[in-house]
Parts: sequence; C-alpha cells; structure tokens
Amino acid sequence: MAGTDATKQQSGGGAKQPKQPKQPKQQQSGGGGGKKKEVKKETGLGLTNKKADNFGEWYSEVVVNGEMIEYYDISGCYILRPWSMAIWEIMQAFFDPEIKKMKIKNCYFPVFVSSTVLEKEKDHIEGFAPEVAWVTRSGKSELEIPIAIRPTSETVMYPYYSKWIRGHRDLPLKLNQWCNVVRWEFSNPTPFIRSREFLWQEGHTAFATKEEADTEVLEILELYRRIYEEYLAVPVIKGKKSELEKFAGGLYTTSVEAFIPNTGRGIQGATSHCLGQNFAKMFDINYENEKGERAMVWQNSWAYSTRTIGVMVMVHGDDKGLVLPPKVASVQVIVIPVPYKDADTQGILDACSETVNALLEAGIRAESDSRDNYSPGWKYSQWEMKGVPLRIEIGPKDLANKQVRAVRRDSGAKIDIANAGLVEEIKKLLDNIQQNLFDVAKQKRDECIQVIHTWEEFIEALNQKKMILAPWADEKEVEEDVKARTKGETGAAKTLCSPFDQPELPEGTICFASGKPAKKWSYWGRSY
Amino acid sequence: MAGTDATKQQSGGGAKQPKQPKQPKQQQSGGGGGKKKEVKKETGLGLTNKKADNFGEWYSEVVVNGEMIEYYDISGCYILRPWSMAIWEIMQAFFDPEIKKMKIKNCYFPVFVSSTVLEKEKDHIEGFAPEVAWVTRSGKSELEIPIAIRPTSETVMYPYYSKWIRGHRDLPLKLNQWCNVVRWEFSNPTPFIRSREFLWQEGHTAFATKEEADTEVLEILELYRRIYEEYLAVPVIKGKKSELEKFAGGLYTTSVEAFIPNTGRGIQGATSHCLGQNFAKMFDINYENEKGERAMVWQNSWAYSTRTIGVMVMVHGDDKGLVLPPKVASVQVIVIPVPYKDADTQGILDACSETVNALLEAGIRAESDSRDNYSPGWKYSQWEMKGVPLRIEIGPKDLANKQVRAVRRDSGAKIDIANAGLVEEIKKLLDNIQQNLFDVAKQKRDECIQVIHTWEEFIEALNQKKMILAPWADEKEVEEDVKARTKGETGAAKTLCSPFDQPELPEGTICFASGKPAKKWSYWGRSY
Repeated sequence: MAGTDATKQQSGGGAKQPKQPKQPKQQQSGGGGGKKKEVKKETGLGLTNKKADNFGEWYSEVVVNGEMIEYYDISGCYILRPWSMAIWEIMQAFFDPEIKKMKIKNCYFPVFVSSTVLEKEKDHIEGFAPEVAWVTRSGKSELEIPIAIRPTSETVMYPYYSKWIRGHRDLPLKLNQWCNVVRWEFSNPTPFIRSREFLWQEGHTAFATKEEADTEVLEILELYRRIYEEYLAVPVIKGKKSELEKFAGGLYTTSVEAFIPNTGRGIQGATSHCLGQNFAKMFDINYENEKGERAMVWQNSWAYSTRTIGVMVMVHGDDKGLVLPPKVASVQVIVIPVPYKDADTQGILDACSETVNALLEAGIRAESDSRDNYSPGWKYSQWEMKGVPLRIEIGPKDLANKQVRAVRRDSGAKIDIANAGLVEEIKKLLDNIQQNLFDVAKQKRDECIQVIHTWEEFIEALNQKKMILAPWADEKEVEEDVKARTKGETGAAKTLCSPFDQPELPEGTICFASGKPAKKWSYWGRSY
Repeated sequence: MAGTDATKQQSGGGAKQPKQPKQPKQQQSGGGGGKKKEVKKETGLGLTNKKADNFGEWYSEVVVNGEMIEYYDISGCYILRPWSMAIWEIMQAFFDPEIKKMKIKNCYFPVFVSSTVLEKEKDHIEGFAPEVAWVTRSGKSELEIPIAIRPTSETVMYPYYSKWIRGHRDLPLKLNQWCNVVRWEFSNPTPFIRSREFLWQEGHTAFATKEEADTEVLEILELYRRIYEEYLAVPVIKGKKSELEKFAGGLYTTSVEAFIPNTGRGIQGATSHCLGQNFAKMFDINYENEKGERAMVWQNSWAYSTRTIGVMVMVHGDDKGLVLPPKVASVQVIVIPVPYKDADTQGILDACSETVNALLEAGIRAESDSRDNYSPGWKYSQWEMKGVPLRIEIGPKDLANKQVRAVRRDSGAKIDIANAGLVEEIKKLLDNIQQNLFDVAKQKRDECIQVIHTWEEFIEALNQKKMILAPWADEKEVEEDVKARTKGETGAAKTLCSPFDQPELPEGTICFASGKPAKKWSYWGRSY
C-alpha cells in the first residue's frame, strides 16, 4: 500500500504505552486560566517527565501540553488541535503545488470499500486484514454485506484505473488524494506515530513504461526528503527497503528514514513505491500501445502522513516542551510586553503592536501576548512549551533604547536588536534557527550511526541504540534470521533501508550476519 | 447539526433514481480513444437525455460524461474525479482564507464517535440515528462497543469544548475542519446532492454573548452567498428556516436557498446555525465570566458541502453537457488547432502554444488540445461536454489574419479576436460569461417565483413548479398541515426559508394556509 509508513509497524515502539498525562485542569486550556480563579494562575506549566529519562511519557505529555493533541475517548484516536493542524497545512501548501507542477491531479475516492474488491490482491490484503475496520450496520439495520473502511486506497482506486485507461494516450494517469485512513491497531497507540485514524496524501500513478515510473518514484521521494529536511529540520536517509520490508505486492519500495536518538529507533518517514505490474495484473489495467498491442501499465503509489509531525516532535522537543522549526511554526515570533512597576505600560504595549505589525507586513508569522492576568515569566514558559521559535520581549529599557530583546527557543540565546533593521535581523535569526535545528539534529543522528562488520559488533551497537550500517548479503532469509536472533522485549532489529548513497564495498567483504559475500551496505536497527 | 443541508432531505428528489448511464466504453476515458481502435474514434460523445425531458437521467449522465463523477461499486458513494475536485479546491481557496481572517482555526477531530457521546443530545440523535453507519468489527474481532462514523461533529467536538473552555479569556473558541462525513441513506442517492459520504467543512464556534454568535451566523452566511453567487454563478436567497425545518437542537437556522427551475424544487445550499445554549447545557460548556460567575456559552455551527457542485451543474448544464462558470473552472480556456489540408500545421500548433502561454502568464487557466487522433469537431464536443467556458480555435485563416476565434460555451457566440490585446479581451470575455451565467440563472429563477395569497393559488403554483412566496402565520402546526395536505408522489411542499429581504406585509394580511393573521412572508415549495 502507499505508506505502510504511517502507522503500520511492528509493536513495541519507544513511546511505551503513552497514557494521558495527569495534568492540572488549567493546563488544558492553554491561555485560559483555571476553573476557579483566573488571575495569575501560574502553576503546573512544566513537564513532569524528562526526555532523557522517560521518553514515552515525555512525548505524550509534550504533545498534549504543547496543545498539538488532545486525547480522545476512543483509544488510538487523537484530536489534532490547531497548533498541529497548522503544521500539516504548511506542509500541504508546499507539497500540493509541487505535485501539481508534475501534472498530478487531486481527486477523492470513497472511504468505503467492498470486501470483494479489498481482498482481490492477496499479499496486499494479508498485510491489512487484521486491522481493517468493518461497517456492518446502518441505523438499526444490518448491512447485507459488511463494508470496509479504507486502510489505503489501492484496491479502492484500481478497478477504475482499469476502466479509465484504454489507450496509450490515457497515460500517464496521475492522481492524488488528501484524506483520512483507518487502521485498527491494538498495539501501543502513539499520537501521530501510530494512530487508528490518520491523515495523509496518497498518490497513485500509472505509466506506459517502467522508466517513467522509476523516475517519478525518486522525484516524489525527493519531495519527502525536502519536507523532512527543509521544513521539519529532520535529517533523513534516502534508500531502498529490503525484500522483507518492501510493500507487499509491489516491485520495490523507497523511503526516507529518520532516527530518534533517545530511543535508538529508526522511523520510516514516508514511502514511495514502485508497484511494478502486479496490481495491473490483478485489476486488469492495460491499454493499447502505439503498435496496437495490449500492454500492462507500470504503477507507483506514495504517501506521507501526519506521522511527520510526531517525528519532528520527537527529534527537536526538549524538557521545556515543543521546539518548532520556523518554517512550519504557525507562530514564528511571539512578542511579550514586560511592563515593570511605574513603567510606561501603554508605550510598551504600543511598541509590541508596532513590532508585530512590522513583522506581519514582512510575511513573518508574529503575534503578541498582551494578556494582563499572566506574568511575563509565565508567558515565557507557555510559549516555550508550545515551541515558538523566537520570543521578543519589550520592557521599559528596550523602549528607552529603541530596541527589543529576542530569545531563541532552540539555544536560549538572548540578542538585543535595534528597532531599525529589526525585520531583517529577525528574518536572519529565523533562518539561522531553522538551519541550527537541522544541524544539531544531524549531528546527533550522525553520532548514532555505527559502521560494523561482525555479529558481535552488531549486537553491541544494537545495545547501544545505534543506527547500524552493515555489509550484508541482501537475502530475505538472512534478515529473517537476524530478526529471530534479536527478538526481545524491545522488538527485533531489522533493515531500515539500503541507502542510495553507498559507501565503498571492497571486494571480499563479508555479510555481518551470514558470513556470505556482502552485496551492499544497509542500515539496521530497531524501529517504530 | 451543521448542515442538514448536505444530504439529509426528504426523499423523492428531482433526480429520480439516477442509474449509471450506459455509455460506450470510449466515452469513459475521455480523451483516450476506444478499446479496440484509437484513431478517429469519434462516436458516442453526446448526451442521450435532454435536460427538459428527463432531468434526473440527464443529470446523472452529464456528471459522468463531463468526467466529474464516476459511479462507485457501493451504492450512494461516488468518485470525485479531478474535474470536480478542482472546483471544490477553488471554493476552498476562497473560503478558507476568509474564515482565517475571522480568526477561525482549522483542526481535525476523529471520524469515530462512541455511542454514548453521540446519543447525548436527544433531538440531535433523533435526526441522525437512522442513517448512522456503525463499525462493529476490526479484522476478525468484534468490537466491545460499536462505534459510529460521524454524520456531523457536534457530539464529537463539544465534550472537548467543555474541557478547553474555562474562563472568559478562552472565548471565543472558533474551530473549523475540512473532512468527510457519512450518512447512510437509502432513498434516491444522487451524485453531489445526496450521497452516503460527502466532503464538507464544518465550523463550530463558542462565544460569551448571543450578540457575537448572531453576528457570526450572518458573516458566514454571507460567505456562503458569495460561494454560490460569485463563484458558482447560482442565485440564492438568504433567510431563516422555519421552526419545523431548523436544525433540531439549535436555536435558529439560517440558509442560502437555491432553486432548480427544471424540477421546480428548492434546494438548501448551505446552513449557518445558531445553536443557542442547548448543546452547552448538554455538554456542560461553561466558563467563569468577568464577574467571577459561571455562565454558559453561545454556540454556532455552519457547513457547506460538495452539494454546491451539484447545484451548479443542475442550474447551468445544458443538452451539450456541463457549463462551468469561469471562476471555478480548472480549465477556463481550451485552445484547439484547426489545421486544414495543406495548412501550415506547425505554424498553427505554435500559435496555439503561444496563446496558451500568454494566457497562463496572465493568470488565466488555459490548455491546448493538440491530440492528432481527434478531429477539431470532436474536440469541440468533448470540451463542451466538460463545460469549459471559452474555446479558442486557431486555423490557417486565423494564422494569416493574426487573430483567433473564440467561442463562448454559455451562448455559443463566436468572436474573432486580434492577437494584439488578446489577453485583455479574453479576461473581459470570461468576466462577461461569469456575469451572464448568473444573470440568466437569476432571470430563470425569478420567473419561477410566484407570489400567492390563497390556498388555491398555492396549489396551482405548486403544480406549475413554482417557488412560492406566501404570507403565513409562522406556526409549526400550519406547516405540518401544509405538508400533510400536499403529500404525494413527488414529495410534500414545505417552507424553504423566510427571506431576510421581506416584502411589505400590509396589516390584515391573512395566512394562505390557515386563515390566521400572517406574520411574515416565506418561500414554499418542494425541495431536494
């Protein structure tokens, strides 16, 4: 399917059994104050878990306290609050025009799929059957035939591709949809990372030639890399999945792979599959080519999901809360008045408004927080919790000096900036924060990469939560063997990908696991 | 709920039992040619039904042949093809920024709702219960408790509004989501107009005061009017629904009402409800006001759906196919080369490309159709079927005269336009087409409006498929009586709305149906 990535992974992830964190009520409402007394209700803003100590608990606490997620009364379902939805929309505003440039068109297929169609491709349904949600009743009537909710849309769409594609001039057929999908999993639901319903885009394309399909697979993968690296500031590795890990029913799967240093787990970021001609065979998608002969199409499918947001939180968040890269933050700069006793409060408030307006005019997403029932210190904490990249403080001294004080969320660094040239400085700072987040994340990720050659080195690196780069035989049986030998409470090790960027493989190099001649380098590790 | 409008209406609509029209296969693939032989396969493009003769059949044929809809193998579900999805996206690109200006934020709540929550508001669930789809099984396991798929999201969202709203500073809370909803109806499914799944936006807002809620209801309604009138070129009437027709559980409902002259039926275009404090009571949504007292919020909900597209098709379409208003057409101008024998074919093709590029640069959505296996005439028919507002033909004579020939889809008028000043002329023409579509639709609609005073006049006008403006007592019992007395094969008459723009009501005017003193003017008719 397009994107096993999004939620379908083996159980036992690093975010262990996230429970709804217990929180004082006033935290829930963000800026709103407590139930009983509104003024100066300044308790309970901090996180009770530390990222380094209890990663799973920290994660579920930070997505709730940062107001990205609200836990829902149906387990495994989550509410995407405006703070996370805005990030989704910003990524969409990048990706959607990019695929339109590639002449991919949006459409919408039904959320329902009949069992006969769903079960047509055997390998495919085998992967999804255990987690398909079935509608069996409407009102008080039993349906004659149960109807499935889409876990992905290959089987929903391809009968119609068969109908629409007749001749070579109907090709390529390139469609995409933005929608919700449902996978009713029972193990370890985790906000964004593994949820029973999630949002994604799924692209489904059909070509006359394998070459065109191959080209598109990589073009889309590059867009996924850009979402992670340029928008979310998360370094990823592009590569090809192993035979065991590829999309069942497809020809080959490419992915962008991220890594969470705290848990030592890889995480599939998004996938771009070449389906080859297997689905075309099953769904009879053929056409008359230029010579007047019948030929089968070559197909791709590709997807990224709201999982992207979870990866970003896991990579950048800290013990103060979320850390949002400026490019995806719906508020890039929060301006906070700091009126001391006897200060010119109105002058300070005016300076805050002027600053916000100047930034907005320059296309910077800025807001001021002039609530008078919270202290500046409490506001600092709250906006740090929400991960706003840059805070601007304006107090009497700043007013007098015609400057503002900027505080970076990523480094905590404080910089005084003169009002003249403010906008340019802020722009530079935001760019710098974006780059710094990526650089720091890359450095941390790179420090986790361990090149190994032997089984002993492999096990040692695995125990040290490394992302392991190893020479191997590229055989299904070997990967199955590694999985069996590393099975344990925290999940078995498996291949993450074979990177496109291959280190040199000297002749005679031996597979770390089988002792056979190595065919390529692959990343291995535990994963989400 | 936000928008009973979208699909929930009494049965017996004008599009009677739309069946999938039988079509020659080559029609399905649009530009692609037939299954057996590709070259010059030029048959079967026309519609087999006429709008005036078999409206229901005409409608289902035109949405399929115009490539907006593909019928799906689950009854009542339809595939939105790129041709209709683009219209949805254009409307979204207008509406979404408008509500963001109003500080309404997007979010996403789960598609699932537990039965206990769904059933909390009695009037509400009464309206929806018969058409709720229930998930009872995942994989091979029965769920412990069946879970509903949202028919609308009041009950999904409001428990969390209760949690998030604590103090007056949390107000207003203004959220919106773009999503799919499911209403498992069994009567007369019709593409766009009444389908088991549809796309919509649903806004849900909470305010401290009724005044703020009242103001927003009308602001949103004005945006809905603009979607219909400025984008879809469909005239609508703004007004208030009767007590019988208002959203059950709400305080009052406003709507924009369209009319389909061919069937003589009104159609609810979109609704903006003031929910009052009823849901707040049920879901315990209260806050501490500035005096330190508990107070209940005032709520609104509002929605428009893919139904909008169906209304547009019904109003503007003709016996040649769809007619798209330029503002929502994904292709506004189609450029077709007309190379006669011995003509300078390459020169003509080049002129087509240049024309398209010039239009694209000016922000006009233009494409050329240079397929060499179809005749110009066949292409004319196909793009007429798809409703492209303006066709440009370029032949040898045009090349020689440095001009193009433009043909309007709305009027069929042919205009020669010199290459110099082409872009400006085309812009003017598109504006003119947009205005003309609205004017013609308004004239046709207005011709159907009949002012009546007596029961006899009412019945006569109803039989003549009029949209009836009548003085009435504004009493639930009177409307119920009218419904009972007009019940029949084609559905009972009911109120459409009481227009905000009220004609004068002289003292002593009598209700057409009850003989009691009339309180207001209302529109009546059969409806979708």
